[in-house]
Order: sequence, then C-alpha cells, then structure tokens
Amino acid sequence: MSDNKAITTRAADFSAWYNELIMRAELADYSPVRGCMVIRPNGYAIWEQMQANLDRMFKETGVQNAYFPLFIPQSFLAKEAEHVEGFAPEVAVVTHAGGKLLDEPLIVRPTSETIIGSMMSKWIQSYRDLPLLLNQWCNVVRWELRTRLFLRTTEFLWQEGHTAHASEAEAEAETLQMLAVYRKFQEDFLAIPVVTGRKTESEKFAGALRTYGLEGLMQDNKALQLGTSHNLGQNFAKAFDITFQSAEGSMDHVWGTSWGSTTRMIGGVIMTHGDDNGLICPPLLAQWQVVVVPIHKTDTERAQVLEAADRLAKDLRATGLRVHVDSREGIKPGAKYYEWEGRGVPFRLEIGPRDLANGTTMMARRTGGGKTSLPLAGLADVLHREIETMQRFLLDAARERREAGSLRHPKSKQEFIDFIEGGGGFVYAGWCGDPAVEAEIKEVTKATIRVLPDAEFRTGDAPTRCIWTGREAVAEAIWARAY
Amino acid sequence: MSDNKAITTRAADFSAWYNELIMRAELADYSPVRGCMVIRPNGYAIWEQMQANLDRMFKETGVQNAYFPLFIPQSFLAKEAEHVEGFAPEVAVVTHAGGKLLDEPLIVRPTSETIIGSMMSKWIQSYRDLPLLLNQWCNVVRWELRTRLFLRTTEFLWQEGHTAHASEAEAEAETLQMLAVYRKFQEDFLAIPVVTGRKTESEKFAGALRTYGLEGLMQDNKALQLGTSHNLGQNFAKAFDITFQSAEGSMDHVWGTSWGSTTRMIGGVIMTHGDDNGLICPPLLAQWQVVVVPIHKTDTERAQVLEAADRLAKDLRATGLRVHVDSREGIKPGAKYYEWEGRGVPFRLEIGPRDLANGTTMMARRTGGGKTSLPLAGLADVLHREIETMQRFLLDAARERREAGSLRHPKSKQEFIDFIEGGGGFVYAGWCGDPAVEAEIKEVTKATIRVLPDAEFRTGDAPTRCIWTGREAVAEAIWARAY
Repeated sequence: MSDNKAITTRAADFSAWYNELIMRAELADYSPVRGCMVIRPNGYAIWEQMQANLDRMFKETGVQNAYFPLFIPQSFLAKEAEHVEGFAPEVAVVTHAGGKLLDEPLIVRPTSETIIGSMMSKWIQSYRDLPLLLNQWCNVVRWELRTRLFLRTTEFLWQEGHTAHASEAEAEAETLQMLAVYRKFQEDFLAIPVVTGRKTESEKFAGALRTYGLEGLMQDNKALQLGTSHNLGQNFAKAFDITFQSAEGSMDHVWGTSWGSTTRMIGGVIMTHGDDNGLICPPLLAQWQVVVVPIHKTDTERAQVLEAADRLAKDLRATGLRVHVDSREGIKPGAKYYEWEGRGVPFRLEIGPRDLANGTTMMARRTGGGKTSLPLAGLADVLHREIETMQRFLLDAARERREAGSLRHPKSKQEFIDFIEGGGGFVYAGWCGDPAVEAEIKEVTKATIRVLPDAEFRTGDAPTRCIWTGREAVAEAIWARAY
Repeated sequence: MSDNKAITTRAADFSAWYNELIMRAELADYSPVRGCMVIRPNGYAIWEQMQANLDRMFKETGVQNAYFPLFIPQSFLAKEAEHVEGFAPEVAVVTHAGGKLLDEPLIVRPTSETIIGSMMSKWIQSYRDLPLLLNQWCNVVRWELRTRLFLRTTEFLWQEGHTAHASEAEAEAETLQMLAVYRKFQEDFLAIPVVTGRKTESEKFAGALRTYGLEGLMQDNKALQLGTSHNLGQNFAKAFDITFQSAEGSMDHVWGTSWGSTTRMIGGVIMTHGDDNGLICPPLLAQWQVVVVPIHKTDTERAQVLEAADRLAKDLRATGLRVHVDSREGIKPGAKYYEWEGRGVPFRLEIGPRDLANGTTMMARRTGGGKTSLPLAGLADVLHREIETMQRFLLDAARERREAGSLRHPKSKQEFIDFIEGGGGFVYAGWCGDPAVEAEIKEVTKATIRVLPDAEFRTGDAPTRCIWTGREAVAEAIWARAY
C-alpha cells in the first residue's frame, strides 16, 4: 500500500514528482537488474488498454501479428552498415548457453529488422506475396547508461511493425498510414496532442531512408518522442536478399517499412496530464473508469450500501463502463479517495445511506470541480457523456498548454536561446539544412530538431532564413530539449 | 503460399506429418537461430485466442497482470538449491552489454520465481498485502538440445502465474484452483481431454513442494504435458526473505504458488485433432470460424456474389462469429478449399449464383460429412449450434480415442511392457513409490509416470500391488511415453 506522504510538486522538482507519482500510484518499480523496471499491475493495466486499442487499429489496416526470435546472430546486425553502427554499441550479448561457449554470439534483439528480414526473404517470392504486413508485441533490450522509469530502460515492451511492398510509393504510403494511426491513437486515447513530421538525417533510424516521428510536449516543456515510422527503402531488402518477381516477370528487391511504439507512452500520459496529487488517466485508457466507494457506519448500513454499490456497478458495466467497487474493510473513505486520486481514476462515485434514500450518488471528477449529486436513474448515460467530455478536455488542455509553451518564428538567434534556456517548449524556426548547424545548436542550447513538421503544424509564412546562420532556409524545424 | 503437395500421412510417419502440417498451414517456421522458431500469423492467431480466454479466466479469479525483467542476476538462481540444480544447465547467459564485460553475468529467464520473489519481498509486509496474485505473459529461454516446433524450443511464449499467501492451505487451494482453470480451458477451448494429478518427486518443478500437471494423449499415443501448477511451499519465500506480519502480530514467510502454460498447447491441438489433410482447429479457438468462398464465372456474377458474401459475413459477424471472405482473384475455389482445409477452418460456406437465386449457401464441416445446403435465413443460429456441436464432438472423439488407447490395470509387468512397446498410450497401474523403480521402468520402457491421477480418473478397485515389483502399492500411477 502507498504511504500517505504528499508527493513533491511539479513546480518544486518535476523529475522527483514523476518518480514519486509512479511509486505512489504503484505503476512501476525499480528492479534488482540495472536499468530494468518492473511494471506493476496498475501500470500494466494501462499498457493492456494501449495494446488492445492499437492492436485493433493495426488489424483494421490489414496487419497480422506474428512472433520472431529474441536472439539475433551477431553477424546479422552487420549486414546493414548504418544499422550496425547505430545499434552495436548498446546491445546485450549472449556468449554462453547450455553450459557451453557459443560458436557465434547472439544479440538480444534491440529491434528486429534483421531477423524479420531474413525470414521475409524466405517467404516472399512473387508480387502475389506482397504487401506483407506484420507486427509483433514483444520485449527489446538496449543497454542504456542513464535510465528513467518508462522513458528509458534497458528492457522495454513495444510493438514493432514490419512490412514489405512492391514499390517505393506503397512503402511510403504505409509509413505515413502508420504515422496517422499512431497520431489518432495518441490523440483519441492518450489525449496527447502530437506534432508529426520528418526526422532529420542525424535523428533518423539507423538503416532507414526516412523516419517520421510523433512528438508530445510535456508539462516541463521537454519534448517526448511517442512513436516513429520508418521508410526503410530497399536497404534491408538488399542486405537480406528479399526479392520478388513482379507481375511483368522482372525481379526486384522489396521496399520496406517499420514502425514502433513503446511503454514509454505511459510516461507520456503521466507527464502530460498528471498533477500534484498524482496520475490523471484519460478515461478511455483507464483500467477502472469509475470507482464506487461505499460509505457506511453501522453493519446494517454496510449491508445495504454494499448491495446497492454492487448493483450499481453491475448496471454500469452492462453499458460497457469499467467499474470497480472498493469494498475493502478497515480503510476509511477519505483514505480510499486519496488512493484512487493518486492512481488517476477519472470518476469516483460515493454512495451512502442518504444517497440510497434519495436515489442519488455523489460524483467527483479527477480533473477537479467539486462533487455533484446525480440521480442513479440514467447515470450510465451521464457517465458516458462525462467520459467524452473529460477525454476532450484533457486533449484540449494539453494542446493549449503546448501552444502557450511554444515560440513561433523567433526574431533572432538570441531570442531562440533565451526561450530555450528560460525553460520554453517548442521553437518553430527556419533551418538551412546543414547538419553541422543542427549539431552546434544542440551543443549551445541542448535543444534538438524534433521534427520538420508536417504542413498542418506550420503557421504563417514559411521562414525564409535559417534562425542560426541567416542562410536560406530549406525547411521549417521544431526544436526542443527532449527526453 | 502453400504448395499443393499432399502431406505425409500420420500412419506413415507421425513426426513428418506434424512438421509438414505446420509448414502447410503456415503456423510456424524454423528460424536462423538454433532451436528458436518463428510463429507465423496463422499460428499466432491461435495463440491470441488462447491468451484472450485464459487471461479472462485468470482475471475472474482475482489475478492481475504485471511484467518483470527478462534478465536475472546469476546469483539469484543459486538462492534456492533445487532450483539452481534444475535450471542452471539449460540457461543462456549474457556476459557482455553496452560494449563491456558485466560484473555479474545475467541469466535470460528460464522462469521467474527468483526475480518475482525478490520483488515480492519488497512489496509484502502485512497479511493485508496477501494474497498477492500476479501473472505475466512473456518469453522464456531454456537451452534445449533437441527441439520440435511448438513442443520444445529454445525460446517459447508462455504465461507464468506467481502468488503469495498467508497459509499453506491457501497456497494449496490456489495451486488446485489454477489446475482446474487450465483443465476447464483445455477441455472447453482446445477440446483436449486431460488427466490431472500430482507429479512424482522426480518429475516435479525444481524448487516446488508439490507439482500438479495436466496430460493429454496425442494421436500417436504419446503423452503431452499441457500445463503445470506448483505449490512452492515456503521455499522461495525463505530464499528471498518474503515475510509478512500476521493479524496477530507474528512474522512468517509467505506460502507461494506458480503455474504456467505455453505455446506448446498449439502442438497439442495439432496432434489431438489434426488429420491427413491438415489442421483441425476447434471452433472456439479458430481465428476464422467460418470462411466464405464466393463462386462465379462472369464479371456480373462476381459482383453479385461478392456483394452477397460480404453482406452475409457482416450479418454473421454481428452475432459474434469470426468470419472471413476469401475474395482473392486468380485462385480457383478448389484451391481455396484445399488451403482453408489445411489451415483447419471449422466451417466453409460456398456461395454462387444458384445459391443466390435460392437464398441458400453450401456448408462444409472440417470434420467431414459432406456438404449441406442451408437457407441464408437463420444461418447464424445454425452456425452457433454447429460450433457447439463440433466443439463437443472433437472433445468426445479425443476422449474416446484416449480411452481406447489406454490400458487399465495390466495383469503383469510383461503386459505393461508389451503394451507400451506396441505403441500403446496411458497405462494405469499400482506403484510402490520407489524412485528407483520409476527410473528402472523409464530405462526399460521409455515410459514415465505422467501423474498420480486425481480420484475421478481412477477406475475400479485401487491396485494393491506395484506392477513392477509386486510390493505394496502406495499410489495408482499413469505411465506413458511422452513428448
């Protein structure tokens, strides 16, 4: 059970607030293995909601799930030049197994382009086998030096989609389709407004032709990358000899994509919506959307109230709501409120003898605004509307905060620097396209180019000059310090 | 796509039949990593059905899902004496990570009692924290020398439940409850009749007080263990110092259980129900319960038939049926029938111009019996009943086969030996309880004690004498050769 000490406030220490919130809500815990976390039931339930909804959205686009080996022969990694350079430094290596030294060491997968590529080359012969649209839900390992619960851990859970197509245009369409799926999921379920766009060469996936990403802005004005979608071109197809015969009879390499999202999204939800009392979980993502707390003094009251609470829960569940009755004994209602508040449950219903007599219940929203007495009759409809309203409210509030924390088109390099150093969020400005300039800005401000934003996120006239060099701008970029 | 060569028959070579069925149905494939398999979409869809149903059954008993690290410090394994002896020889070891030699090697989890025990010791303080009922769905690695797709692979997918209780009686009740959950799942969904009972000391889990198991008898009369449930006693609680304060204020170690089931169950379904044409998937477990094959010659017919097939599928889906319309062009209906037969789809509906005119469809069952013309009106109800009937038929047929392949109470040691060597299945007989005798029987017949069966599986008078030694029997045992 959580202790009852208040957590550090966001204003006092955002990083301490984040860790203490996770402990208080029992979302995760540190493990005895360096850099690895334990996802506790309260946190895992959120992941299950994420999985169920994303998985449905993937399948609606024709994607099928499969499972590929955890281990990858070390030599596979080296087959794609950029890929090995990007991942070799952070892999975990199995050298011994079954009591013997292995002939070839095995890498614990940091991502699965290579092992899946090797299988695709076996399965794909003809254009009739395309597109091949696969996804797997699994664990991956990247040896990180500095770790943060959910945000950056040595092992994490994710899904990785891998597809093969007959043309570059189809692969690009798939890459953008999955970016759109992630965006819809993150806005509709996580209530996190994201900016989408292309990554620069220095930030793209090791082995990709082009990487697209989704960026949220957290309450501390740091950016969090919430997913990526890669057009792999023919890079892995050439490395793993994935060829197909076209309808016309010619042989060609397939065009690939891969796309992933991880348990890091849970950290994004915490840092987007949480307050100084703990987690605020968007209702569509919550394990329990409604918690019913029975209130009683005598044993007679207790029996009546519990029976009414169970009946109420049953009626609400029948309409698709996820409802829990907290009938634990020996814990006062106030302590229960405190606990469910910390865990982020969107709606609390209190039900006591007076409510029973009146046919009402007292409803409290996790987002504040005091308690409201509601008639039990028609309550399910009210709650379904409340869920919609809170879901929209959280997304709108996060978007307003992001916009208030963003600077569009600073007049000068100094304004850019001052804004970032003053704790500001996204900076939209022109960039000359020179990687050396990108690196210099990172060195000076610790801000990186999050994305070259898609058209709908750009406003006003496109900047004509690079904010740093004054040279001609080739793109508008969004900079921020990032997790 | 599958080729169209018939697979080896069960009678000719059961093992070749098994492998060829898996390849034909595209359930799994060999990977470039020794002993590791790839689960292809057709196989993974069966696993998803297994997961969804088992997971629901677990949660109905109060179990919550969580996730623990893949890696286990090598020293943890050694904390429970029997556990290390059982698992140390078959672990994979990470010695290097992030480009450096690790101070302490990490084991890739073969099972998670130790890492979960170490966390439980942190989370459990009081009787109020008990019972703690956890489960995780994950991958595990055991370095096997001889591997078989689904049945025995170096890496496999499973669920492992881990619970902690305040008393031995509660732990035993949990152990038996989960055994009952597995049995219900395997009989209701996999349509595999299982014998439950206790494992002997030599066959129990390394570190358990008592292990219970579920055994199915495959078509080749070999037994397949389909799940195990362990009463761990206080063994891991003592090794990892998991203590709690009782209501009376005394300190005690918790009592633990663990229980697991794996992707091996897919192999069990294949070997229980499959025939010489391929997989027969029990309808409650099938990705597609019904496949609709449109039949047409002209373009006009094609448009009409496809529209009718889509409408039919939509109507059937609205009643909860899992329906796929195979509208692929360039493949003849006969080739489609052959493919879906190999993949084990329970019901096929053919719909052509004549059916449209008559308001009917032609239905074929995967279990045989010719085609039946059915009116489209009321078809969903008919199919729901057909599903129930086929599900029951498969379970009954498998039970009859098992009983026909079992020998109860042989008169002599020689009858036992002859039966096993003649390819027979379960032998029920008295056993003196001596592990040396158990070992000798295994040496001579290659048969092992699968379980000391629960009361309902024993018949007639309990054997009073050991079948091998003639000494007094302490239990009735079931022997078989096993996977």
